[in-house]
Amino acid sequence: MNLATLRNGASFGQMVDDCLGQGVTAISPWRDQIAAVGLAEAARIVQANGLRVTGLCRGGMFPAPDAAGRHAALDDNFRAIDEAAALGADCLVLVVGGLPGASKDIAGARQMVADGIAAMLPRARAAGVPLAIEPLHPMYAADRACVNTIDQALDLCVELGEGVGVAIDVYHVWWDPNLAGAIARAGDMGCILAHHICDWLVPTTDMLLDRGMMGDGIIDLKAIRSMIEAAGYAGPQEVEIFSRDTWWKRPGDEVVKTCVERYRTVC
Amino acid sequence: MNLATLRNGASFGQMVDDCLGQGVTAISPWRDQIAAVGLAEAARIVQANGLRVTGLCRGGMFPAPDAAGRHAALDDNFRAIDEAAALGADCLVLVVGGLPGASKDIAGARQMVADGIAAMLPRARAAGVPLAIEPLHPMYAADRACVNTIDQALDLCVELGEGVGVAIDVYHVWWDPNLAGAIARAGDMGCILAHHICDWLVPTTDMLLDRGMMGDGIIDLKAIRSMIEAAGYAGPQEVEIFSRDTWWKRPGDEVVKTCVERYRTVC
Repeated sequence: MNLATLRNGASFGQMVDDCLGQGVTAISPWRDQIAAVGLAEAARIVQANGLRVTGLCRGGMFPAPDAAGRHAALDDNFRAIDEAAALGADCLVLVVGGLPGASKDIAGARQMVADGIAAMLPRARAAGVPLAIEPLHPMYAADRACVNTIDQALDLCVELGEGVGVAIDVYHVWWDPNLAGAIARAGDMGCILAHHICDWLVPTTDMLLDRGMMGDGIIDLKAIRSMIEAAGYAGPQEVEIFSRDTWWKRPGDEVVKTCVERYRTVC
Repeated sequence: MNLATLRNGASFGQMVDDCLGQGVTAISPWRDQIAAVGLAEAARIVQANGLRVTGLCRGGMFPAPDAAGRHAALDDNFRAIDEAAALGADCLVLVVGGLPGASKDIAGARQMVADGIAAMLPRARAAGVPLAIEPLHPMYAADRACVNTIDQALDLCVELGEGVGVAIDVYHVWWDPNLAGAIARAGDMGCILAHHICDWLVPTTDMLLDRGMMGDGIIDLKAIRSMIEAAGYAGPQEVEIFSRDTWWKRPGDEVVKTCVERYRTVC
C-alpha cells in the first residue's frame, strides 16, 4: 500500500493499522508522512510490525533556475537517502522534476536530472538504497517530471550505471505505443524496482488528484502485470491513488479493503 | 488561423472577416462551422476572398464498439473527404479516436484506426485530399486519440502508403524525448502536412480547453519551428487554441491581432 492512497488525515500509525487490519504488510510511505511522526518513531513502527517498506516517496525535483537551487535539491535528496536507509526501504522513488522557473528548455532540464541523479548516486550506493526513476505521464512534463517514458528512464539507467532502476506506474505509461518493448527492455536490464497500480478514469476531472481505484477505469491492469512479470519482476504491486474527492474522503480501512478486493479481482 | 481559436459564437463569415482584417489569408475551419453556414456558401466565401484552406478539421474517430459503429464512422469520414475537396483544403486532419465504449484494449483501438484510415484512403486519394494524422497528447489516449506520438503516426504512414501524412501540433508533442528525431524522420518521409501552434500553460486547469496563446506558456516554439523547417516543411504555422475561459471570450479581431503579434515575436 502506497500511503498516498490513504491521505484522509490519518497519522502514519493509523495508516499502518488500517493496512495490517486487512492483512497488508508492505507499505510505501511519503516523506511528509514520516516527518509528521518522526523518522525514529516511524522506523520503530515498521520494525515492531515486521513491515516491508517497498519504497520511500520521494526524492528528485532536481531542476532549479540556479546552482544554489540545484544544490539545495541535492541536499534534500541526500536526506531522502538517509531516511530510506533508516526505514530499510527497497528503493527511493525519484520524481525528477519539470522545467525550472519559467524555462522553456526541456533538454536542459533533462540534463539537470541526469546530473542530479549522478551526484546523489555514490551516497545511494554506499547506503544500499537503489534509486527508482519514475517516468511520469507526459501531462506532467512541465511542472513535475521531464522523464516521461520507460525508455527515456532506461536510457538514463544505462548512462548512470549500477544502483538506478525504474518504478513503473501503470497510470503514467499505459498509453505508451512501445509499452511491451520498454518493459521487456527494463527486465533485460534487471531494472524494474517497483510496480505501481491504480486506474485512469474517463473522464479525468483533475490532472493530478483524480486517479481511479483499480477496475474503475480503462487500464488493462492484468495485461501490464503480465508484461512486468514476464520481464522477471516478482515484487508486489503497490497501490498509489491520488483521489482528493473520492478515496481520500473515506475511512482508511475501507480504502484498504477495497484495494485488496480489487487486487484479487481485476489486477 | 485555425478557426477553433475563434469560437466566440461568431459565424464563419465573421471569422473570415476577423482574419482578413488582420491580413490573415489562410484558414483551417472545423466541420461544424462549415455546416452552420452550409458547404456551398462556405466554399463561395473561400473562393471570393482568395483564401487558402490549410486543412479541414476533422475526420477520424474510427474506433467503435461494433461494426455498425465503425461503418457509420467511415461514412462520416467519406463526407469529410468530400467537404475538404469542395473547400480545396490542403489536407483533412484526422483525430483518430480513443478506446471504444468501455474497452481497455488500446492495441485493438489502434488496429481499428489503421483499418479505418486504410478504408477511407482510396476515396481520399481519388479526391486529391491528403489525410493528416494528428498525434494527440497521451492525456487524450483514452477518449480522443490513441495515436500519441509522431513516430507512432509515421509508422502508420509507412503501413498505409501514399496519401497519408502527419499534422504536428506543438501542444501534443513538445514533451517527446524523441521530438527532434521524429520530426527529422517525418521530413525524410515527406510526411509533414501541417504545423499547429499554441502554448502549454503552467498550471493547466482543464485538460481540453485551457490551451495558451503563443508566448504565455513553456513550449519552445522557435526551437520546434526550426526542427520542422529543417525537415523541409515550408507551409504556414496554424494557430489552434482551445481556450474556453480566456480567448473564446474575446472579440475575434482582438484574438487574431494577438496571434499575429505573437507569431511575429515568439514563434
